[in-house]
Amino acid sequence: MTATKATQLRSLLGTGRLLAGVGARDALDARLIEEAQFDFVWASSFCISAANCVPDSSILSMTQFLDAARAMNEAVRLPVVFDADTGYGDEHNVAYATKRIEEAGLAALCIEDKVFPKQTSLRAGGRHALLPIEEFARKVESAVSARQNEDFVVMARTEALIAGLGQEEALRRAHAYEEAGADCILLHSKSRSASEVVQCLRAWTGKARFVIVPTNYPDLIEPVIEELGTVAMVIYGNHTVRVAVKAVRDVLSEMRAVHGIHTVGDRLATLEEMFSLQRDFGKAEPPKEA
Amino acid sequence: MTATKATQLRSLLGTGRLLAGVGARDALDARLIEEAQFDFVWASSFCISAANCVPDSSILSMTQFLDAARAMNEAVRLPVVFDADTGYGDEHNVAYATKRIEEAGLAALCIEDKVFPKQTSLRAGGRHALLPIEEFARKVESAVSARQNEDFVVMARTEALIAGLGQEEALRRAHAYEEAGADCILLHSKSRSASEVVQCLRAWTGKARFVIVPTNYPDLIEPVIEELGTVAMVIYGNHTVRVAVKAVRDVLSEMRAVHGIHTVGDRLATLEEMFSLQRDFGKAEPPKEA
Amino acid sequence: MTATKATQLRSLLGTGRLLAGVGARDALDARLIEEAQFDFVWASSFCISAANCVPDSSILSMTQFLDAARAMNEAVRLPVVFDADTGYGDEHNVAYATKRIEEAGLAALCIEDKVFPKQTSLRAGGRHALLPIEEFARKVESAVSARQNEDFVVMARTEALIAGLGQEEALRRAHAYEEAGADCILLHSKSRSASEVVQCLRAWTGKARFVIVPTNYPDLIEPVIEELGTVAMVIYGNHTVRVAVKAVRDVLSEMRAVHGIHTVGDRLATLEEMFSLQRDFGKAEPPKEA
Amino acid sequence: MTATKATQLRSLLGTGRLLAGVGARDALDARLIEEAQFDFVWASSFCISAANCVPDSSILSMTQFLDAARAMNEAVRLPVVFDADTGYGDEHNVAYATKRIEEAGLAALCIEDKVFPKQTSLRAGGRHALLPIEEFARKVESAVSARQNEDFVVMARTEALIAGLGQEEALRRAHAYEEAGADCILLHSKSRSASEVVQCLRAWTGKARFVIVPTNYPDLIEPVIEELGTVAMVIYGNHTVRVAVKAVRDVLSEMRAVHGIHTVGDRLATLEEMFSLQRDFGKAEPPKEA
Repeated sequence: MTATKATQLRSLLGTGRLLAGVGARDALDARLIEEAQFDFVWASSFCISAANCVPDSSILSMTQFLDAARAMNEAVRLPVVFDADTGYGDEHNVAYATKRIEEAGLAALCIEDKVFPKQTSLRAGGRHALLPIEEFARKVESAVSARQNEDFVVMARTEALIAGLGQEEALRRAHAYEEAGADCILLHSKSRSASEVVQCLRAWTGKARFVIVPTNYPDLIEPVIEELGTVAMVIYGNHTVRVAVKAVRDVLSEMRAVHGIHTVGDRLATLEEMFSLQRDFGKAEPPKEA
Repeated sequence: MTATKATQLRSLLGTGRLLAGVGARDALDARLIEEAQFDFVWASSFCISAANCVPDSSILSMTQFLDAARAMNEAVRLPVVFDADTGYGDEHNVAYATKRIEEAGLAALCIEDKVFPKQTSLRAGGRHALLPIEEFARKVESAVSARQNEDFVVMARTEALIAGLGQEEALRRAHAYEEAGADCILLHSKSRSASEVVQCLRAWTGKARFVIVPTNYPDLIEPVIEELGTVAMVIYGNHTVRVAVKAVRDVLSEMRAVHGIHTVGDRLATLEEMFSLQRDFGKAEPPKEA
Repeated sequence: MTATKATQLRSLLGTGRLLAGVGARDALDARLIEEAQFDFVWASSFCISAANCVPDSSILSMTQFLDAARAMNEAVRLPVVFDADTGYGDEHNVAYATKRIEEAGLAALCIEDKVFPKQTSLRAGGRHALLPIEEFARKVESAVSARQNEDFVVMARTEALIAGLGQEEALRRAHAYEEAGADCILLHSKSRSASEVVQCLRAWTGKARFVIVPTNYPDLIEPVIEELGTVAMVIYGNHTVRVAVKAVRDVLSEMRAVHGIHTVGDRLATLEEMFSLQRDFGKAEPPKEA
Repeated sequence: MTATKATQLRSLLGTGRLLAGVGARDALDARLIEEAQFDFVWASSFCISAANCVPDSSILSMTQFLDAARAMNEAVRLPVVFDADTGYGDEHNVAYATKRIEEAGLAALCIEDKVFPKQTSLRAGGRHALLPIEEFARKVESAVSARQNEDFVVMARTEALIAGLGQEEALRRAHAYEEAGADCILLHSKSRSASEVVQCLRAWTGKARFVIVPTNYPDLIEPVIEELGTVAMVIYGNHTVRVAVKAVRDVLSEMRAVHGIHTVGDRLATLEEMFSLQRDFGKAEPPKEA
C-alpha cells in the first residue's frame, strides 16, 4: 500500500525545506501545478468560489468545496491542502468536516479564526470580526481530535493582521492555536509590505512553523523567506485563476471582434496537449491516472 | 415572471441571425463568455472533462456535467446549451436526462449518434462507431417527447463525418433526425478544410438549420458562415480552456523558475476584477447575481 | 406550460383550507406522501439529517439538503416546502440559498430564527439561542427580495417558544417577520400540551397565517386546528422516518435471529409494488415520471 | 492507522464462515444493518434507485450511487460492498469507477455482465442481454488492475441464469471471471426454487467462492447455505426498503384517515432513538461517529 497524502506531506514538512504551493480552482489547475513541480496544491476557497462566480464569503457549501478538492486530489500525486474557511460552523461542524476531508484523502486542512460567515481577506472595506481566542482554539482542538491519522496536518490561520489587531494579538493567537494542537500557523496579511509579517515571524518564540501568502507583498520571494527559518510553506493563493481570467478575457474579446477563431491559434494549448492533460491516450492504452 | 432561457434561445433562433457560442469549463468561463457578448454558453463535455482531468469519453457522469452546467446557468443571463454526449444510455436514459436538464433551467440539449461510451471527436486514431440510424432517431424522439416546454431546444449531432462515413450518410442521418423532431442538426467534422462541412450544407434539402464547430477549420469565419444561410449556430468548443492552459502553464513555470510571484503581476487579472466577476461588492451592497 | 409548484402552493393557500404535509427523507418518502393524498411534502432537515445519520444541527450542507429536495420534487406533483434551517449563514447566504431553492423548482422555503449552527428543536437539554429580532427580520427580507417569482412562498419560523421565551416574545417576533414580508409564520413548540401554541394563535392580531408542527401534542388534530382559523398548514415533521426505523429495525432483528428471510415476507411491499413506485413498467412502456 | 474496510472484509472472507449482508438505501439503513449485527452493507443499486423513485436500470449516475455509498460508509464500521451495476460503460469506465469506489473507502465492488443500460433482474418480462464473455472478462480485469490495495474485493456477477441461459453458461462465465481475477462470483437467479442456484454451486469446480441473493427463494436459509460450502456471502438485497415502504404507507394512510397523528405513536421509533441513531448527544458530548 502506498503512503497516504497526509504522510507524504508530513514527511515533506519534516525535511525542513520551504514548501511552495499554489491555489487551484479545479483538477486541471491542480495538474498544471503538479507539472510545474510545486510541492502541494492549495484547494483554495477563493479560487473555487471564483470558478462558481460567487463571493468568497462562505457562500458555497462544504460539499461543493470538498467535491472540488476530491477531484483535484484524484488528478495529482501531490498532497492537497484543503482551505476549510472557518470550519463551516462551530467545533461540531469542524469535527464533522475534518472526518470528511481526511476520508477524501486530502493531506491537510486549514481553518481560520474569522466569524462565520467570513469575508474574503483582501477586499478593501471588508469586515473581519474574529472569534474569541478560546472559541477558535476549541475548533482547532476539535479538528486535531477528529483526525484518524496523526499525519493529517491541521493548519490554524489567524486573521489578526487582516483585522488590524496588530502583531501582539497575532502572536497571542498563534501561541494559543499551537497549544491547541495546530501543526502550522497560517499568518495572513494584506499589508503592501512584507514587514508586517516578517516582524511577527521574527518575534515568534513558539515551535510551530508558519505558512504565508504573499499575494500583497510579492517581493518576499522564496530565498528570502527561507532565511527567516520559521516558515514551512508559502502559498500563491489565487494566481492560476487570475492568469486564466486575463488570458481568456483577451482571447474571447478578440474572437468576438474578428468574428472567428482564425487569429487566436497561437495562444491555445494544442488538442494533443489537452488530451495529455486528460490522460486520454486512446483505446490502445487505457486512461492512466496519477 | 421572466421568460425561461429556453424561450430566450428559441426567440434568438427565430431572428435568423447566426448565433455564436463558446464552450465553458465552469461558471467563471460562462461569465467571461457573457461579458464578451456571445449569444450562448456551450456546457461542453470536452471542457468539463478537461477541468476534471479525465478523457472526454463518457467518464464523468450526467450528475457531474449537470452540476457544472447548473452553476454556469446561475452565473449568466445567457442561455446555456447542454452537451449531453450520447444521452447516457438508451432512449430511457435520454428521457430521464432531458427532464433533469430542462428542470435545471438550461435552454437546450445536444445528443450525438455515437455508441456509448463515446470517444472524443478530434483525437487522432479515435474509434467512432455510430448507432444505427433508427436507434438514434428513437433517442431524439425520446428527448423531444420528454420536454415539458416546447421551447426547450433539442439538437441532434451526427458524427457521420467524424466516423468517415461521408456526406451521403451525414445527410441521411440529418434528415432522419429532423424527422424525429430535432430542432437543429449539429454536424461535426475533423477535416482540416471547411469544404467537407460546406458541401454537406449546400446539399441539404431539409428545413432544420445546422450547428457547426469549426475547431479544425478556423478559416470558416462568421461572415462566411452567414452566407451559407443554413447555419443557425457556431460553437467555439474548447477555446477558453485551451487559452487558460497555455497561460497558466507559462506563468506557473515562471513562478517556479523565479521562486516567487514578483515578475508575473502584469499577467494577472486584478483582485478588484476578480471580486467583480464574483459579484462581491462588500456588505454595503449585497452580492448581486445575474 | 404548466404552473410552477410555487404557483400551485400559493393557490392552495388561497383556498383557505388547512393544508397537511409530511416530512420526507428522500424521493421515495415523498412519493408515498403524495400517494396518501397529503397536500405538500416537507423537505425536512431532521429527516434528511437522519437519513445521513448526522445530528440535525447544521451539519449537512445546503448542497446536500438541496440535492435531496430536488430528487423529492422530481418524484412528485405535490409542491415541496424546503426546510432551510437558519438559512446557512447571514442574509447574504439566505439570498444565495433562496435563488438556488427557487431555481430547483421548490415551492417554498422556511428559515428559522435560531443562531447558526442550530440544534434540533425537540431534544431535551438543547441550547436554543435566537438571533436578535432585527437581524432575523433582515434574513426574511433577504429571502423575499431574492425570489424571482412572487408566488414562491417564504415561511419564517420562530423558535421563541422552544427557547422558553414565552408567548409575548413569540408574537413580537411573528409580527416583525410578517412585517419583513414572510407569507406564513411557523410557530414551533415542544410543550406536551397544545395550549402553548393555541394561546399564541388566539392572541395573534396580524394577517399572516401560521404553520404548526404538532409532534409533541398529537391530540391537536386537524378538525380542531381548522377551527382555530389562523393556521394555514400543519406539518407532520418526522413520522415517515420514525415509522421506517421501527419497522426496519424489527425485521432486521428477526432476519438475524432466524438466519434468513423466510419469515418476514408478509411485512414487505411486493417487488411489483416497488417497480410501480419506481415507475418501472418495462421496455414496452417507457418509464413515466410524475 | 486503522485497517481499511477492504482489509477488514478480506479478513472476514478469510475466516471461511458465511457472511450475511443487507441492501441499504441510505446511511440510516446502513446503521440499522450494523446494529442488527450483519457482516456487511450492500450499497444496492435497487434500493438507492428506489429511494430516488427511478427504475433500477442504469438511470442514476455513478456519482449518485457513490455519494449514497460514501454516506453509508461514513455511518458504519461495517465494510460496504458497492453495487456497481454494469460498471457504467466499458472497461475504461470500470477502471475510472474502481478508483473512485476504492478512494471512497468502500471495501468491495460488484459488476455484472449485462449489457449497459441494464434492466433490474427480478422484474417479469425484463430484457437481459449479456455481454460477450470475453468483453466482460476485460471489465473484470480492468477493475482488478485499477485497484490500489490488493485487499479491495472485486466481485463479478453473472446474470446467465436471469437471462435464461442455463447452468452450463453460468459456470462457463464463472470460470472466465475467476480467471480474469474476480475474488467472488455473484450468481443471481429469479427462479422460485433454490435448486437452480444450488445445482450450479454443486457443479462448480473452481476455487472462487460465490455470493447469492435468495430474494426469490427465501427458504434457502443460512444454515443450509453454509452446508453448500462454496458460498462466501449471502445478500438480502432489498428487504429494508420494502419493509419501510409497507410500514410508511400504512401509517400515512392512517394519518390521512384520522386527520392527525394521535393514533400512530406506538408504531414510531422515539425521538430519543432517532437522536441516538443520529449520534446526537447534545453539546456536553460532541457528536461521535463510528
